[in-house]
Amino acid sequence: MVRIALGQLNTTVGDLDGNVARMADWTARATHEGADVVLFPELAITGYPPEDLVLRPEFVEDNLAALQRLAKETAAGCDVIVGFVDRSDAGLHNAAALLRAGTIAARYAKNKLPNYGVFDEKRYFVPGADACSIRVGSSELGISVCEDAWHPDAPFDALARARPQAILNINGSPYHRRKGAERLEICRDRARQTGSWIVYVNAVGGQDELVFDGGSMVVSPEGEVAARATMFEEDLLVVELEEERASADHAADWPGQTEEVYRALVLGLGDYVRKNGFREVVVGLSGGLDSTFVAVLATDALGPDTVRGVAMPSAYSSSESVEDAVDCAARLGIRIDTLPITDVHDAYRRTLADLFRGLSDDVTEENLQARIRGNLLMALSNKFGSLVLATGNKSEYAVGYATLYGDMAGGFAPIKDVPKTLVYELARWRNAVGAAHPPIPDRVLTKPPTAELRSGQLDTDSLPPYEELDPIVELYVEDDLGVDEIVERGHDRATAEQVAALIDRAEYKRRQAAPGVKITPKAFGRDRRLPITNRYGR
Amino acid sequence: MVRIALGQLNTTVGDLDGNVARMADWTARATHEGADVVLFPELAITGYPPEDLVLRPEFVEDNLAALQRLAKETAAGCDVIVGFVDRSDAGLHNAAALLRAGTIAARYAKNKLPNYGVFDEKRYFVPGADACSIRVGSSELGISVCEDAWHPDAPFDALARARPQAILNINGSPYHRRKGAERLEICRDRARQTGSWIVYVNAVGGQDELVFDGGSMVVSPEGEVAARATMFEEDLLVVELEEERASADHAADWPGQTEEVYRALVLGLGDYVRKNGFREVVVGLSGGLDSTFVAVLATDALGPDTVRGVAMPSAYSSSESVEDAVDCAARLGIRIDTLPITDVHDAYRRTLADLFRGLSDDVTEENLQARIRGNLLMALSNKFGSLVLATGNKSEYAVGYATLYGDMAGGFAPIKDVPKTLVYELARWRNAVGAAHPPIPDRVLTKPPTAELRSGQLDTDSLPPYEELDPIVELYVEDDLGVDEIVERGHDRATAEQVAALIDRAEYKRRQAAPGVKITPKAFGRDRRLPITNRYGR
Repeated sequence: MVRIALGQLNTTVGDLDGNVARMADWTARATHEGADVVLFPELAITGYPPEDLVLRPEFVEDNLAALQRLAKETAAGCDVIVGFVDRSDAGLHNAAALLRAGTIAARYAKNKLPNYGVFDEKRYFVPGADACSIRVGSSELGISVCEDAWHPDAPFDALARARPQAILNINGSPYHRRKGAERLEICRDRARQTGSWIVYVNAVGGQDELVFDGGSMVVSPEGEVAARATMFEEDLLVVELEEERASADHAADWPGQTEEVYRALVLGLGDYVRKNGFREVVVGLSGGLDSTFVAVLATDALGPDTVRGVAMPSAYSSSESVEDAVDCAARLGIRIDTLPITDVHDAYRRTLADLFRGLSDDVTEENLQARIRGNLLMALSNKFGSLVLATGNKSEYAVGYATLYGDMAGGFAPIKDVPKTLVYELARWRNAVGAAHPPIPDRVLTKPPTAELRSGQLDTDSLPPYEELDPIVELYVEDDLGVDEIVERGHDRATAEQVAALIDRAEYKRRQAAPGVKITPKAFGRDRRLPITNRYGR
Repeated sequence: MVRIALGQLNTTVGDLDGNVARMADWTARATHEGADVVLFPELAITGYPPEDLVLRPEFVEDNLAALQRLAKETAAGCDVIVGFVDRSDAGLHNAAALLRAGTIAARYAKNKLPNYGVFDEKRYFVPGADACSIRVGSSELGISVCEDAWHPDAPFDALARARPQAILNINGSPYHRRKGAERLEICRDRARQTGSWIVYVNAVGGQDELVFDGGSMVVSPEGEVAARATMFEEDLLVVELEEERASADHAADWPGQTEEVYRALVLGLGDYVRKNGFREVVVGLSGGLDSTFVAVLATDALGPDTVRGVAMPSAYSSSESVEDAVDCAARLGIRIDTLPITDVHDAYRRTLADLFRGLSDDVTEENLQARIRGNLLMALSNKFGSLVLATGNKSEYAVGYATLYGDMAGGFAPIKDVPKTLVYELARWRNAVGAAHPPIPDRVLTKPPTAELRSGQLDTDSLPPYEELDPIVELYVEDDLGVDEIVERGHDRATAEQVAALIDRAEYKRRQAAPGVKITPKAFGRDRRLPITNRYGR
């Protein structure tokens, strides 16, 4: 019998003192709950992922000192398993330490280093070659870190031979849609492979483009989920493991597929704002779906007093749009100011009149309007210290239907990885759960999407309908398929070619985009690294 | 005796057809010159680095077809060694092929995959485990790819045992200052280790943030340079190797340290513009050093008809600044237009007056001016299809002394990796080599740096003098030192702390910066991957 506490903690990258203080506190709580050992996530000492901070020798040194401090501060408590950056003659390791009675009683270096998608672990770390088991009371426990569990070979082949009662797996596993099901599947595979309990502890919280969704769990040797921690919140889950059964001090419900994405966005946005110390966010409210939805997200993440909206109507804005922006602000209880852009737009046109004489209006004049709005929002940011939220969605970022320095301006782009059709789904879901007080005006959900940068403009003037566009973006971006293969999957060739060309051509814009929350298997940003200078397919 | 042609080619990423056509042409030339074998750079079929294009199965397929096509087209010519993406049961390889008489006669998979700095090769490729030798006429030749040569173990340990007459090393080795000396050193080490000639072929040309500087060479078994190709230009160098001596059909001079950086910037900027198909670039000319120098670079890279300047004076611009901008344009023979920003600035102030009532002027009003200029340049870009060049230097990008969406606006930032003190050195060098017609007005080189965003403003109001700032930036950014270590190297603690804090806080801005030419060992961009959300040292 062994009592294990799963410490699903929200650390902050680089906050060594803060992370240690919270883990010392949680260890005291776990000890109080009778735990024999408490587990904290991968690299919980440094926060995950520390990226190139790890290349600074001073940082590695400070992280080792922080580990020693945590050992001292938990000397009187239960055992602690925690992730840190270790150093050996071979190099640096993504490692786990067992802290016991004030000392580092065991060290394990992660064997499998992910170097795909958002991960660059081979840039920093040397893989360990050995498996690691520890004894806690009468129980033998194996230790592993994140990616280790995704492969049946080392260290799990050795653990399968050793057959410990349980295998502890500490993670910094970022969220994407339906990742929970993938994780559960690999925990089941490893449980059946080893005949051991799998104790899976994940981090929780937002870090730049990533959100860690928690969802820590215990899986039986037969592959059944025996205990679950919450998703998207910190949780300390204490589980008592016997040979054949496990009992947990509480059980969490996991959200459904739509709610899951919504909560990932709320946590990712909220943590970016909190961890970077902003007092306020500001959103340009156009009365369209994207900006309305971002305001709703921000209000759910931060509360209405921390969110302000700005309506910036032009000559092309319909009265309905301004009404809808004001209506949404009222429903949310957030401040809204109105700054018409006509005066500034006229001044730009006067300034450029000589140079542009004889040339007809085109996208130049449209982009100017978007950029005036970007500048006004940035002026508020400079004057009031607020963080500007960019409101573009993944469909727009994909095909370049967003203005650089215009509606792309901002410090964070909460829905940049959310395709437009999913924005609709999330918005409808959010209105349904708040049915008594739906935050999004009905008209916002039903009117056809428009940028309102010229008379009578509709998104469908330039783009295929989003129901056609989004599946093609997914096949091209997330699945790396070529046009022929997309056509084989039933899409129109001309449309597929148009969309692929637009995606390729917009790479230079995306390179200058603000970060946003990754919620799909492949987001724009660190996750997808394409050259700008690229003649493939042209 | 063997005649080897070093094909120092400027490929374009993704342009499989174009790259194959040029290599077929060069192979015919090499054959005509009596070469037994012609060498092309690492991944010359795809262009280097192809980044995530490699994750598309269709792209890998097309690259294999392109290799076959090159084999067919060179069937009647000499042997060809060329880099391509190979595929085996183990995965993808960064590989070299020997093409002979229309077939792929040998394949070699790079053993050492760089995964540091700008390199992500472990993201894409599986390392080969075998060395490779081929026979050309009576000569035994070893094959290696780039990073292989930086290590004495595999494949070079095996090559040392085999002792081929020469070891061919094909490269896509990006430039940074003084890299040539490092390369020469490793070629010498490998030559002495193996007792073989080292035939080092590098790519040339710009690709997004990277510039490949050429400088292909042949090093004798004793470690002497026996032949050199040009730097920063394409070159086909034919070398006849005998047991004890080598003779080349021509010899190139390599530029000195300052010229080397200048030419790297010219090539990197020029290729970005050419390979992305822009007809024209546009630069905001403030009369300050950075924008003047960028205009000079652009004119040297592209010719005066392809460069246009825009002076955008405000109420704070001195008459000298406008004169200097006009003077520089005249010296360069480029077009200059004047677009005063006062009218637009006034319109912004009127628009924001109610919201900002009672608040004093601060950085908000300064940034607005920079952003108006950014918007005007982008309007020209939209109207005329020109590429906007951002004019910030590395010192500014480091400490955040540049306005996001303002002077940071643009598609390419040619000097973003050039510290301000080096901008001065390069500018003086450029004036000296063009002594009869120095392009940069003297006053631009002698007046104190100012952003002219408020009355009497100087850079030194906010920042330490660049002579103090630049060495601290180098120690903190390029050498990854902490403040204590910087102080130990003789710098003032308060200044070092200020600079480090400014660098950390500006990370969010740099994440949205345009790409620019890497010329230091560590540039901002793919080369330095720091979290934005980061409490370390705060």
